[in-house]
Amino acid sequence: MTKKQSIREYGVQIGNLSTGQKNSIADVEGVKVGHVTLKKGRINTGATAIIPHQDNIFLHKPIAASYVINGFGKSIGLTQINELGTLETPIILTNTFNVPAASDALIEYSLANNEDIGVKTGTVNPVVGECNDAYLNDIRGQHVNTSHVLEAIHNASSDFEQGDVGAGTGMSCYELKGGIGSASRVIKLGCHKYTLGVLVLSNFGRKKDLIIKGMSVGEELDHQEVDCYGEKGSVIVVLATDLPCSSRQLRRICKRVPLGLSRTGAYAFNGSGDIVLGFSTANKIEHYPKEELQEIKVVSEDKLNEFFRAAVEATEESVLNSMTFAETLIGRDGHKRISINEFLQNLL
Amino acid sequence: MTKKQSIREYGVQIGNLSTGQKNSIADVEGVKVGHVTLKKGRINTGATAIIPHQDNIFLHKPIAASYVINGFGKSIGLTQINELGTLETPIILTNTFNVPAASDALIEYSLANNEDIGVKTGTVNPVVGECNDAYLNDIRGQHVNTSHVLEAIHNASSDFEQGDVGAGTGMSCYELKGGIGSASRVIKLGCHKYTLGVLVLSNFGRKKDLIIKGMSVGEELDHQEVDCYGEKGSVIVVLATDLPCSSRQLRRICKRVPLGLSRTGAYAFNGSGDIVLGFSTANKIEHYPKEELQEIKVVSEDKLNEFFRAAVEATEESVLNSMTFAETLIGRDGHKRISINEFLQNLL
Amino acid sequence: MTKKQSIREYGVQIGNLSTGQKNSIADVEGVKVGHVTLKKGRINTGATAIIPHQDNIFLHKPIAASYVINGFGKSIGLTQINELGTLETPIILTNTFNVPAASDALIEYSLANNEDIGVKTGTVNPVVGECNDAYLNDIRGQHVNTSHVLEAIHNASSDFEQGDVGAGTGMSCYELKGGIGSASRVIKLGCHKYTLGVLVLSNFGRKKDLIIKGMSVGEELDHQEVDCYGEKGSVIVVLATDLPCSSRQLRRICKRVPLGLSRTGAYAFNGSGDIVLGFSTANKIEHYPKEELQEIKVVSEDKLNEFFRAAVEATEESVLNSMTFAETLIGRDGHKRISINEFLQNLL
Amino acid sequence: MTKKQSIREYGVQIGNLSTGQKNSIADVEGVKVGHVTLKKGRINTGATAIIPHQDNIFLHKPIAASYVINGFGKSIGLTQINELGTLETPIILTNTFNVPAASDALIEYSLANNEDIGVKTGTVNPVVGECNDAYLNDIRGQHVNTSHVLEAIHNASSDFEQGDVGAGTGMSCYELKGGIGSASRVIKLGCHKYTLGVLVLSNFGRKKDLIIKGMSVGEELDHQEVDCYGEKGSVIVVLATDLPCSSRQLRRICKRVPLGLSRTGAYAFNGSGDIVLGFSTANKIEHYPKEELQEIKVVSEDKLNEFFRAAVEATEESVLNSMTFAETLIGRDGHKRISINEFLQNLL
Repeated sequence: MTKKQSIREYGVQIGNLSTGQKNSIADVEGVKVGHVTLKKGRINTGATAIIPHQDNIFLHKPIAASYVINGFGKSIGLTQINELGTLETPIILTNTFNVPAASDALIEYSLANNEDIGVKTGTVNPVVGECNDAYLNDIRGQHVNTSHVLEAIHNASSDFEQGDVGAGTGMSCYELKGGIGSASRVIKLGCHKYTLGVLVLSNFGRKKDLIIKGMSVGEELDHQEVDCYGEKGSVIVVLATDLPCSSRQLRRICKRVPLGLSRTGAYAFNGSGDIVLGFSTANKIEHYPKEELQEIKVVSEDKLNEFFRAAVEATEESVLNSMTFAETLIGRDGHKRISINEFLQNLL
Repeated sequence: MTKKQSIREYGVQIGNLSTGQKNSIADVEGVKVGHVTLKKGRINTGATAIIPHQDNIFLHKPIAASYVINGFGKSIGLTQINELGTLETPIILTNTFNVPAASDALIEYSLANNEDIGVKTGTVNPVVGECNDAYLNDIRGQHVNTSHVLEAIHNASSDFEQGDVGAGTGMSCYELKGGIGSASRVIKLGCHKYTLGVLVLSNFGRKKDLIIKGMSVGEELDHQEVDCYGEKGSVIVVLATDLPCSSRQLRRICKRVPLGLSRTGAYAFNGSGDIVLGFSTANKIEHYPKEELQEIKVVSEDKLNEFFRAAVEATEESVLNSMTFAETLIGRDGHKRISINEFLQNLL
Repeated sequence: MTKKQSIREYGVQIGNLSTGQKNSIADVEGVKVGHVTLKKGRINTGATAIIPHQDNIFLHKPIAASYVINGFGKSIGLTQINELGTLETPIILTNTFNVPAASDALIEYSLANNEDIGVKTGTVNPVVGECNDAYLNDIRGQHVNTSHVLEAIHNASSDFEQGDVGAGTGMSCYELKGGIGSASRVIKLGCHKYTLGVLVLSNFGRKKDLIIKGMSVGEELDHQEVDCYGEKGSVIVVLATDLPCSSRQLRRICKRVPLGLSRTGAYAFNGSGDIVLGFSTANKIEHYPKEELQEIKVVSEDKLNEFFRAAVEATEESVLNSMTFAETLIGRDGHKRISINEFLQNLL
Repeated sequence: MTKKQSIREYGVQIGNLSTGQKNSIADVEGVKVGHVTLKKGRINTGATAIIPHQDNIFLHKPIAASYVINGFGKSIGLTQINELGTLETPIILTNTFNVPAASDALIEYSLANNEDIGVKTGTVNPVVGECNDAYLNDIRGQHVNTSHVLEAIHNASSDFEQGDVGAGTGMSCYELKGGIGSASRVIKLGCHKYTLGVLVLSNFGRKKDLIIKGMSVGEELDHQEVDCYGEKGSVIVVLATDLPCSSRQLRRICKRVPLGLSRTGAYAFNGSGDIVLGFSTANKIEHYPKEELQEIKVVSEDKLNEFFRAAVEATEESVLNSMTFAETLIGRDGHKRISINEFLQNLL
């Protein structure tokens, strides 16, 4: 019998750093996650919203950064994050062809909360990450609409489901069932504790390459149903922290995410859109600054190592969680992704 | 009396290189441009489509490159262009809040022409550039919809209007009326002639900064109606050529565009999304390649100088054309942008 | 009769912002510049040192950024500036083949001032910019040695010569005599005044392209001695400010430098190594930080526009100063670069 | 008793792809490697030269690319590689403070072989990678001089030593003895076989993090002599291939190197200069091109996956080889790095 539970509950501990209380991105104070799941016959898709903090995001912009591991992807919003180093909307994850609907939802959400946008002040930069769930989902149908995405934002909570939910509903990881996974780490710096959390939308990899805590378990799996989709996946990684840092420093942390993916067997295949979006809730940049200068706190560069380690560990664990929390799914045209849970007891 | 005509027809010749026959981006063989214009009271917006060639673009992808001058912008599609160096849809220009509608139209267009997308092959990367036309347009109303954009694609022709049309309908340039402008240059290389064309969607700059062919005419203009919108603009520059080149080389050419903008008085202000999208029609990358290796021709690096010069000249002239072809417009809430034509005879 | 004086003394005012007291990079408090000039027959070269502040630079690192306009260049030190956003040595400018000697001098300088380097702490990142002065100088002879560079550092002063001195001794600009030029601008922000200074090592451009304050004077110059070297130049631009800003913001300012170069006629030719190095003296990052977190002040993003303008104006003026301060020189093999001063009265 | 041999000879096979005949970077035809080793008391350093092909490199430039994993490093030559996508000298590896000597040697080498440099044609771009060997070596003494580096070039051979030789003499890896390591992979594409080879100069990592083929062996090692140097290392990875590809494609391959490093336990610590330099011998760009256009072959993008995999595997194996080939060394001030061979039989 298979069980929808974390890799840690299966007895596998990734890395040495302490986890946060929930071992999820919501351990970073203020961060909430919401899903909307569409699962019916050929339709297996959805949307996931990550809310960086509970105040008006457009007015109080968290420091942000992005890193493109492999740019075969259609995410939007990165250009402005790179230039200004801030985030001004929730982050939405969904399937590739519903990026427009998700962007529209973020515009609608931002307009509703800010009467000045487009009238007295500028516009707003929607940030949407995507993966291609076409193997299991009728992606051409573009089934996620604007109201679904607003619902995902509305559903956001510090307790959220993982696995085959939200944007993860139709995703595949290592040719098994993938989806949403999360993990967190706590780092002590002087007298303070800081949290780094990761959430992945996993949709990449070849079954034969899967590694769990150093074990090449993929080699032992049945490879009969191999298909080319394993090389045409993607992974979106959202990284959140309450560490005071600059956008440059945050990008350095985001750049360690591929090291974590690698430890699960990733090669960042050509057809994969592998993108990291990071934000820090410690410093907020005001849309209407009161002063010409703003004082911000930034971490000393040589204290970053433990955060690099945390990013690697939390990424590795998030990918595994996205699989252990997911159930076997038969999607469009009989395409099937088996849950890793069906093998896990034999593998470990 | 003002006249909707090119800066060249006003007697101002920019640079020394020869222009193409039309002196527009459509001098690059196969390139077509189409508009849809929405102009009614508070609504002053639209969309412009640039079609890189007349075959199936998804199947035969032109070499492409992008360059971000200033990333305060919401364009989509750059991540994949940067990674793969190819374009696989038409390029759409529109207002900031209709990027989702334009993306959706490109997805619809691509799905209609390619039954394999999302079923047997991967997805498609829509490329949309945007400027904020909120000063003249009710941008919150998001008046451009998917069918408008498809109409713009359908309207594409090698003869197209410039000025206050399509995406340029509600745009402002140097606090005067801006919009769509185009120009081209022809460069001889050995026995062959190559064409480089530019199309701009102009929406940037302060009136006082305007330069025409080295003359600081802006200083002489009336500055009474100065507003903060001049610093919150954007400019999208589409650059097309039939020069055989790699994506890296094309990006080098695109990187000369800001030098041309500068000669009209641009400072690439903080609030401006200044983005260059380039493509070459000389080499097409096949979606379904027949061989493991493909032979492509690339220009010798030391022959690029004349193309750099062409990019600078054509950009400078395109910006001026976007203004001289535009008529005075009174938009939402009585906001007004005067056509440069009302001053031009006195200025020159 | 020609006169070694600034373009401003020739009656040409670039831009509208106020200059600093010296109208040089040394208007930024603490910044000093020193030269060593080698001029004898075939040897026409040298080195220029820019000292960012008067304390131990390795221990108290100014915020820094770089921007590569065109990377056909051999400068060193950019990789670490980009990663860490700090400078930890003086900046040396010299000819291409003496970059090793200049780097060695910076290592020697840093080791002498810091006994811990390479023993108890890490190493040090020398920053050297270069241009190719081969047209006038016997560059193969590598005539600048380590002690020359240390002498340039030793010579640093807030009053320094411009034109054909130091690294500028053998440089050409627009096929006329170029070299070292500088200018500054003062920007008021709230109750405070900030200074932005620029120093260029100019060695680029075609005579026919030269523009002075919008006038295409180059077209009127005699073009008999045209050579291919005009397309094989370079320009190094050092930008200093006392504005409190992050490395990301400083890079945004540096990215406006090509807009200033363009206004003198630059196309950033293929064979040109056009590189901007910027630093801010307002925030220093401690090599041995006392705390885990450091408080830094950063300017509000929407206040950057005037600094963009200052960068463009000061760059344009610096290039012209590098020419008006330089005298005609006959270098190796009878190669000759005429001073612009011989034409300037007729041109203006 | 310990044995200086490859990890494969210790019975550990990394990955599934076939190796080349020598399982080294010299399996790429034309590539040769030479060392000069300085080992005497406090002096434990050297230089390693990688020759990309056996013809005049300046005249026939291999396609090249670079990727900066973590830029806390002082390598030179990357700016021009990034702009032009070519290499025009051998690649030298050495210690941080002898980058100037190595650059000087490359200039001398290039001048000697090319009388036109600096007279009738432009200059040359020396490419040098470095790591900090200060833990074992008197780095302040700068003991590698120009003639040593020329000797390393002269020594180049397709058979070369690994471990504590050349630039690797004083390097540490995972707080054990590191140095030079190499490996290769062969990939079949259609009827052709292509080779991808990697050479690392390893000088990074914490002992406790070491992973060998998935096993966290580092956790079992004695940690008494832990020091801060493990976080202040670096790694330079040189990647060579005979695959016909563009600089953009080669950079994509280089970007997979950190995935291989990660599988040995790397976190790319803050103080580490982790840099990848890649070249392809399949296409050479002529310094004096005969035609305006050049025909080059490039691989189809979707054939890159196996080369990504090869880069990951060969990197992982090269790091391990750099350790298994190295012997225990007591360096300056009694600092000691033990060879992994002393533990390996117990660990495996």
